[in-house]
Amino acid sequence: MPTGNKVLILMGSDSDFDTMKKACAALDEFDVSYDVRVLSVHRVPEVALKLATEAEERGYGVIIGGAGMAAHLCGAVAGHTTLPVVGVPLESGALKGVDALHSTVMMPPGVPVGTMAINGAKNAAIYAVQILATADDNLRAKLHQFKKDMANQVLAKDEKIQALV
Amino acid sequence: MPTGNKVLILMGSDSDFDTMKKACAALDEFDVSYDVRVLSVHRVPEVALKLATEAEERGYGVIIGGAGMAAHLCGAVAGHTTLPVVGVPLESGALKGVDALHSTVMMPPGVPVGTMAINGAKNAAIYAVQILATADDNLRAKLHQFKKDMANQVLAKDEKIQALV
Amino acid sequence: MPTGNKVLILMGSDSDFDTMKKACAALDEFDVSYDVRVLSVHRVPEVALKLATEAEERGYGVIIGGAGMAAHLCGAVAGHTTLPVVGVPLESGALKGVDALHSTVMMPPGVPVGTMAINGAKNAAIYAVQILATADDNLRAKLHQFKKDMANQVLAKDEKIQALV
Amino acid sequence: MPTGNKVLILMGSDSDFDTMKKACAALDEFDVSYDVRVLSVHRVPEVALKLATEAEERGYGVIIGGAGMAAHLCGAVAGHTTLPVVGVPLESGALKGVDALHSTVMMPPGVPVGTMAINGAKNAAIYAVQILATADDNLRAKLHQFKKDMANQVLAKDEKIQALV
Amino acid sequence: MPTGNKVLILMGSDSDFDTMKKACAALDEFDVSYDVRVLSVHRVPEVALKLATEAEERGYGVIIGGAGMAAHLCGAVAGHTTLPVVGVPLESGALKGVDALHSTVMMPPGVPVGTMAINGAKNAAIYAVQILATADDNLRAKLHQFKKDMANQVLAKDEKIQALV
Amino acid sequence: MPTGNKVLILMGSDSDFDTMKKACAALDEFDVSYDVRVLSVHRVPEVALKLATEAEERGYGVIIGGAGMAAHLCGAVAGHTTLPVVGVPLESGALKGVDALHSTVMMPPGVPVGTMAINGAKNAAIYAVQILATADDNLRAKLHQFKKDMANQVLAKDEKIQALV
Amino acid sequence: MPTGNKVLILMGSDSDFDTMKKACAALDEFDVSYDVRVLSVHRVPEVALKLATEAEERGYGVIIGGAGMAAHLCGAVAGHTTLPVVGVPLESGALKGVDALHSTVMMPPGVPVGTMAINGAKNAAIYAVQILATADDNLRAKLHQFKKDMANQVLAKDEKIQALV
Amino acid sequence: MPTGNKVLILMGSDSDFDTMKKACAALDEFDVSYDVRVLSVHRVPEVALKLATEAEERGYGVIIGGAGMAAHLCGAVAGHTTLPVVGVPLESGALKGVDALHSTVMMPPGVPVGTMAINGAKNAAIYAVQILATADDNLRAKLHQFKKDMANQVLAKDEKIQALV
Repeated sequence: MPTGNKVLILMGSDSDFDTMKKACAALDEFDVSYDVRVLSVHRVPEVALKLATEAEERGYGVIIGGAGMAAHLCGAVAGHTTLPVVGVPLESGALKGVDALHSTVMMPPGVPVGTMAINGAKNAAIYAVQILATADDNLRAKLHQFKKDMANQVLAKDEKIQALV
Repeated sequence: MPTGNKVLILMGSDSDFDTMKKACAALDEFDVSYDVRVLSVHRVPEVALKLATEAEERGYGVIIGGAGMAAHLCGAVAGHTTLPVVGVPLESGALKGVDALHSTVMMPPGVPVGTMAINGAKNAAIYAVQILATADDNLRAKLHQFKKDMANQVLAKDEKIQALV
Repeated sequence: MPTGNKVLILMGSDSDFDTMKKACAALDEFDVSYDVRVLSVHRVPEVALKLATEAEERGYGVIIGGAGMAAHLCGAVAGHTTLPVVGVPLESGALKGVDALHSTVMMPPGVPVGTMAINGAKNAAIYAVQILATADDNLRAKLHQFKKDMANQVLAKDEKIQALV
Repeated sequence: MPTGNKVLILMGSDSDFDTMKKACAALDEFDVSYDVRVLSVHRVPEVALKLATEAEERGYGVIIGGAGMAAHLCGAVAGHTTLPVVGVPLESGALKGVDALHSTVMMPPGVPVGTMAINGAKNAAIYAVQILATADDNLRAKLHQFKKDMANQVLAKDEKIQALV
Repeated sequence: MPTGNKVLILMGSDSDFDTMKKACAALDEFDVSYDVRVLSVHRVPEVALKLATEAEERGYGVIIGGAGMAAHLCGAVAGHTTLPVVGVPLESGALKGVDALHSTVMMPPGVPVGTMAINGAKNAAIYAVQILATADDNLRAKLHQFKKDMANQVLAKDEKIQALV
Repeated sequence: MPTGNKVLILMGSDSDFDTMKKACAALDEFDVSYDVRVLSVHRVPEVALKLATEAEERGYGVIIGGAGMAAHLCGAVAGHTTLPVVGVPLESGALKGVDALHSTVMMPPGVPVGTMAINGAKNAAIYAVQILATADDNLRAKLHQFKKDMANQVLAKDEKIQALV
Repeated sequence: MPTGNKVLILMGSDSDFDTMKKACAALDEFDVSYDVRVLSVHRVPEVALKLATEAEERGYGVIIGGAGMAAHLCGAVAGHTTLPVVGVPLESGALKGVDALHSTVMMPPGVPVGTMAINGAKNAAIYAVQILATADDNLRAKLHQFKKDMANQVLAKDEKIQALV
Repeated sequence: MPTGNKVLILMGSDSDFDTMKKACAALDEFDVSYDVRVLSVHRVPEVALKLATEAEERGYGVIIGGAGMAAHLCGAVAGHTTLPVVGVPLESGALKGVDALHSTVMMPPGVPVGTMAINGAKNAAIYAVQILATADDNLRAKLHQFKKDMANQVLAKDEKIQALV
């Protein structure tokens, strides 16, 4: 059974969706399927961890998690799956995401979480696409095109600013 | 059924025992029973969380957790019990416990962890005794005596230093 | 004489009440009695510390303290009582609560303060209830119900977001 | 052409090999092929970036990068490839890896680096295996076994500590 | 062939221009020529690094770079030129420029970047003038005048505040 | 009754004396009288705060306090006296004195503590002498001499290094 | 010649006056004379340092300095006088006063600056009064009254909040 | 009169020479003349600032300053000269150079210091050479050779590690 090609997007609170929806938008651009779930490992741990455990057989290939403060979501999920987990520390509370960065990235040996920048939801989606492209030449081609488009956008801005000054 | 009067001491790795055994020593001084377990929520999540879930009926009244780096142990346990969880962020890795402090203390609403200083294993035990004393006059009396002893030790040191200078 | 079942809420300034009133609201939900006092250990030290000393005999079972900046309130109170002290570092001033977190959580051996997240007033109340539940089965039952309610709220949000995407 | 199944391990200095060889050891355990290169983007930028550009056609499926201080290696490489880049911030210099963490993880939109803990070389390898497993059922099976072995090691330690106390 | 006397101002994104235009304004005051380019080393690396490589022969004497977050711009440019690179870490994202400061200033031996304060675009220009003045007595004279003007402005403010109080 | 001319040196633990004795040595050089006391505001609060309250009438003119971690000593003392309190945050525990710095310097309005560098015990003594010199011309003269001696030491080192290179 | 009883308030920029005028207000309450000067040690170093050098003979007893960012003002002034210098790190720029705190408080041996909280201008004035009171019983009496007033204000707030809840 | 081609190396204490001598060694490699002085702006301010003021006419083209803790040296010197000042924050004391970095790099508008990494003495020298090369083709050529040598050293290490694995 090949690893699935859907992405599972988890977040600890519905208030995180404002940031995490950028991951949805990016996945839409690459025509990658995904599901979005609000499932706190502190408040509905059994549901969240059951989903993590079953993610592989449910057809997911990558799990993206977004959480703020003492952001245990990604690490807890990583403990229940062998799928790559992509973590997005969210800026919230007094420490502005430094706490979430530490809680997401400083994982102990054996249980990695591939961590993005604070609020880096869009990059989490692109990284998920890069991972899925390991088994999907079509996605790899789209990534090459994405890189070209991005370059062209910068070059257009460069021309604009040279004209401006 | 009254809440139990034993303390459950959890740690994420056996290398944490060097620090966490100070909690054992302090509980011994107060004649409080305890069990010590090495149970990572990342590596044996089902076992760890089952124990947390059953802690109340197994006769524990307080859970102490010690963990370093992205220290999810205490928060994960707190998600599975209504017992007070006392967290000890441990100094390990490049960030020297700042990561563990953030991961332990910055819990979201509804799932508190009463956090001690980095490496504050002894204080975790004393705090557990203060909690158990809520239902145990004998422990309360011991705490009053402990406070007096501690004061006398400082006064003895004060005399010594006055003589020294 | 059993430990009292009231909660004493202290804060260093009346401007702290905006945050600390969340603790009041949470205690109200659990029908736990409490008193609120504004008593700076720097400005009215004798009054504050006398109250801390007498808290046990006045029928309090837990003391919650909220303070910002060089937040000495909780530590000073903990020096004058054997009751469990629950500390809430408050976000104020240029350092946004990092100073208050350090001043509250990094207590020396023998004098623990169970520290909550920065601005974690609601969690302080829940933690106080968890402590009082040690001697009160009724409160323990309410905590189990609280946990179920919280889970159901998350599940409802989860359904909502699945419908949204 | 399917994405390759080798791992390219880059480091900025040969002194980084002490830490990065843990990635080699972990890849060896999973029988995953890899090459190790010392190629600073500051000192031999053309060579380093040419290798990054050609990595895909040379049969690599994942690139691991380890660097300290102003750790530009992973970001620069990510700018030249669509392969997933796994970043390992290294602890070196006065800031003990906080600078390397910031330089590796805080990537701008469009150019993600999946960042590990400071010094997390072993986890980088496991994460690379998780990524390659997207197209390799055999690796996926090994990851499941790895997870079981890790769990058993913890359970053995747990028994040992219970016997000890 | 003498080193050129123009300044090359690079920035990673056109949104950086709001801050970086203060460098333009300051160079205008000293009648120093400059070009402004938007050229991300992550998104158009070949273009950016080719420009850096050719900067010397194109008549530039100093390169100013402004970038936020994992700010690799200045370091990457410094790897491709022997001209002095003046780095301006920009305040953006959750870490408010601390990440950009670390990514810009903590360069490894052999590849220096002369780093300014976070958002210090004006100082970058003045520093560039100080560097160009090494080969230009006229600029040196203007710098002496600039220093006098700056002093006079402070003295005027000092008189004003003495009158005010 | 004039303010006294003795210095009261307080520390929270006898282990702090290794650093704080540099204050004693510096006061000895200026022939200023002092007493040294080990008096924790957490462990013997009544004794410590009584001493602070009576410090003025006992003939002290300045109070120096040295404490580590959640360093409440200086703030608590400042709450009980109108004498100037000079605070020395001590480097101890996992946070290396950053916690003590925050706990000492971030005092609320009305209760200042004049804070020195982490471990700055010698400077605390010199600052105390500068304060006492307000009422003592002899001390002022000694301070002028001290400044000259310090300058001469630097000049001697300057000559030495010029000879060396 | 006795030390003077005026206070010299220095600030690095007129924009600092918004915060520093709280020092003026507090000194007014104690009827202590003061002068306010805007004198950057970077922009008009000779003027600033001449004033510092002459401060003692001009009748000042204490110097208060307020500065932000790389706040060298207080340290530079302390190098030119034996009067006690009270430093106020100001919150400005991307680092929000952490830089100013470090630049003000971490002085090397021999040249102390008594540092207040970030933005602690009011406390700087009170501390200056405490220092001047060393030679002025009248000021000491006012400080005792100030402490009583401050206590009464807290007690009034305490009554108010007890009525409110 | 052309700007001089000597480098003036200043440090705040002779204990800084252990790190700063790496700057001497690097300047020796480029056959650039330099003088080394130990001149604290806090302890011998007149001497230090006189030297800074006269540096230009004494034939210096660049000033390198190395200082730790509240590192005011570079900023103070920059206030007295129009020559480019290259700052080296030194790792010393409890804050390990973070304080020195802040004190050196966060300069206010008008008075730039080109700041190197903490302990980056070698880079300070290379940067000084890059500046002097503005008026010296011979130095520019040496810098190109230096870059090639550095590249070759990395390539040699790369070959070695490929052989090793």
